[in-house]
Amino acid sequence: MTNGQECGQWIEGGGVASPLGFRASGIHCGIKQKRLDLALLEAHDSVPTVGMYTTNRVVAAPVTYCREALASSPTARAVVINSGNANACTGEQGWSDTVEMAGLVAASLGVDPAEVLVASTGVIGRTLPMEKIRSGVEDIVAGLSDSGGGDAAAAIMTTDTVPKECALEVELSTGRVIVGGMTKGSGMIAPDLELPGLPHATTLGFLTTDALVEPGDLAPLLEGAMRTSYNAITVDSDTSTNDTVLLMASGSSGVQPSSDDDLARLAGAVEAVALKLALDIVRDGEGANRLIEARVRGARTRSDAERIARSVADSPLVKTAFCEGEPNWGRLMMAVGKAGVDIDPSRIDISVGDLQVVRNGLGTAHDPAVLRTQMTLDDVLIDIDLRLGADHASVYTCDLSEEYVRINSTYLS
Amino acid sequence: MTNGQECGQWIEGGGVASPLGFRASGIHCGIKQKRLDLALLEAHDSVPTVGMYTTNRVVAAPVTYCREALASSPTARAVVINSGNANACTGEQGWSDTVEMAGLVAASLGVDPAEVLVASTGVIGRTLPMEKIRSGVEDIVAGLSDSGGGDAAAAIMTTDTVPKECALEVELSTGRVIVGGMTKGSGMIAPDLELPGLPHATTLGFLTTDALVEPGDLAPLLEGAMRTSYNAITVDSDTSTNDTVLLMASGSSGVQPSSDDDLARLAGAVEAVALKLALDIVRDGEGANRLIEARVRGARTRSDAERIARSVADSPLVKTAFCEGEPNWGRLMMAVGKAGVDIDPSRIDISVGDLQVVRNGLGTAHDPAVLRTQMTLDDVLIDIDLRLGADHASVYTCDLSEEYVRINSTYLS
Repeated sequence: MTNGQECGQWIEGGGVASPLGFRASGIHCGIKQKRLDLALLEAHDSVPTVGMYTTNRVVAAPVTYCREALASSPTARAVVINSGNANACTGEQGWSDTVEMAGLVAASLGVDPAEVLVASTGVIGRTLPMEKIRSGVEDIVAGLSDSGGGDAAAAIMTTDTVPKECALEVELSTGRVIVGGMTKGSGMIAPDLELPGLPHATTLGFLTTDALVEPGDLAPLLEGAMRTSYNAITVDSDTSTNDTVLLMASGSSGVQPSSDDDLARLAGAVEAVALKLALDIVRDGEGANRLIEARVRGARTRSDAERIARSVADSPLVKTAFCEGEPNWGRLMMAVGKAGVDIDPSRIDISVGDLQVVRNGLGTAHDPAVLRTQMTLDDVLIDIDLRLGADHASVYTCDLSEEYVRINSTYLS
Repeated sequence: MTNGQECGQWIEGGGVASPLGFRASGIHCGIKQKRLDLALLEAHDSVPTVGMYTTNRVVAAPVTYCREALASSPTARAVVINSGNANACTGEQGWSDTVEMAGLVAASLGVDPAEVLVASTGVIGRTLPMEKIRSGVEDIVAGLSDSGGGDAAAAIMTTDTVPKECALEVELSTGRVIVGGMTKGSGMIAPDLELPGLPHATTLGFLTTDALVEPGDLAPLLEGAMRTSYNAITVDSDTSTNDTVLLMASGSSGVQPSSDDDLARLAGAVEAVALKLALDIVRDGEGANRLIEARVRGARTRSDAERIARSVADSPLVKTAFCEGEPNWGRLMMAVGKAGVDIDPSRIDISVGDLQVVRNGLGTAHDPAVLRTQMTLDDVLIDIDLRLGADHASVYTCDLSEEYVRINSTYLS
């Protein structure tokens, strides 16, 4: 489902610090009992940075902090990230803790505090254990290295079972640039990210590139990439208070896109990295056994296609069916129909993997055992053709398993 | 949560045939292996009848049939209902099977086929085993009696574990009337019922009364009752292809509401019966351990309150938390915030049962063990005060358990 190979070359073991001009680190400071819990991403200098944030109206302090910091100056030198505590619903204490985190890192790096961004993820409603973070700042700064992306990716995990990072090298007309990234997220995943100023999960994503990009080109690059990646995934339809994705451009390659074609190639690379990271989140979704793409074609508008794809991807009855391969295609028709989009049921065709299960709105003569096999592959494509128009969209989800319930009925206990 | 006692007197063992002028029956005809699967509700004559139907755009044949039959003549003599097969996504065969069901019952009763309505519930995408239904029609008609409500309520069950029926006697200024009802539903429950002509789950509901009601008064009675009952419940947010609720008024009591106060009392009784049946559905929701009311107060508009209440009631992270009493109140704040309604997080107060867990948007100093106890009662009230206005609404849901996943990952198998 990712097509990064079309854009360039994946870098084995690559991550957020693969582009030139970035360093990263990750340590254990004690917010969590044993695992890494504090990460730092640093650029060689103050560099153009853009962020997109959750549309949840209950917003964690670090989200507000990043919004305000980048509104007053669209550049950043570093991002400090803690896991194990979301610093959400923590009021004035939460705000001053965020400001202190930025200030501590800035002082240690010898930069302006306004140049340090902050992100948090974990349980909502508890104030940060600041003594532990204070004690960790020197180590996290001392640990910065251009091979530190892996530790950083590990330090931002919560219920994630694997770290998620990648980097892609892409050839522009003027030279080669790298796009890197890391992300986290497993539950409370239904990102609906928007640029500040517009109305718009916890996932955190950090994208980097060493391309020399005009500051004004960064926001469209990120927004274009988010629509088909982070904003097209759902684990549980629960949009978090902390979702934040940042894109930083170091310019350290010295390579500047010099044509629309170059910009399109760079945009393609950012989108490929974002999609790979977003799909890694869904594959590692809480209790997930498989990645499911709900693709809707033949829609009158892209918005119609998106609404139906999301209705299918968020349906508990569809998601439980894919847990063990329950061959109940009627649930797909139900989920298409409940989206509130005008459709003609008698035109609908649906395939699951290689098997067509619905033709003209009616079940095909298919073997349920074959359907079961198609439903239980690691990657499943549900292809829904409305046969009404030319627009299309995909939303990516995972199955809903008993393990999801176990994880979330005992998260704090 | 039901306040039927304020309206009148519940009739012990009452049901759909308790009002004068109605008979009912339920038999096993063979659609299901062993359990009752065919029900009939009959009025003494052709009586004023109104229906509300699913807004799913994929609509089962019997739903379309009821819509059309009541549009051409707003009266009915009988309703025949099968369980075990939804007759949805069955095309022309499904339509002619529905017409045949109505015709067979009409012939046996000696009435016009247009006076017999049909409802179906069960698996989607299989044609009805008509030979079994044909063989059952004589028995179902012969079995009609005014004590047959219990068999009828049993015959419409699918994954339900208990039959659901009730009847309430209410005193008008002109005499006593009875409102009765039966319903089914356990999964694919998020009814969004509307009167025909307006844009608008499988639950089926059948309400009866022996009040002498003007035909024009029936639709407002049903619509008023649905908004706070069926349209305010969710088991899994999946709105079915077959949801149908019918209200029939036999007039057999000879008692006619003679004032606005009488109409209000009758409306209160219909609403109380509808709410009791709707809450019985949620209590018997697939895998449910408890009934949860998400009540939102202090909203600027009722629509705002409804959106936030539904966001909380449909949140998988909230629903899993209530499975075993995970004391994670931050998920409630997340679910309030993601509803897309303009709120002021710093004004929000939230209580769970007797325990206030959020004050001014921040966690209170409460004992998680006490919260756990409040979360695991049979009936739980989540009271959310936005402190922005005077409007309020409730949406009723159940917890999300491993059992829900087990039921739905192996329904057909």
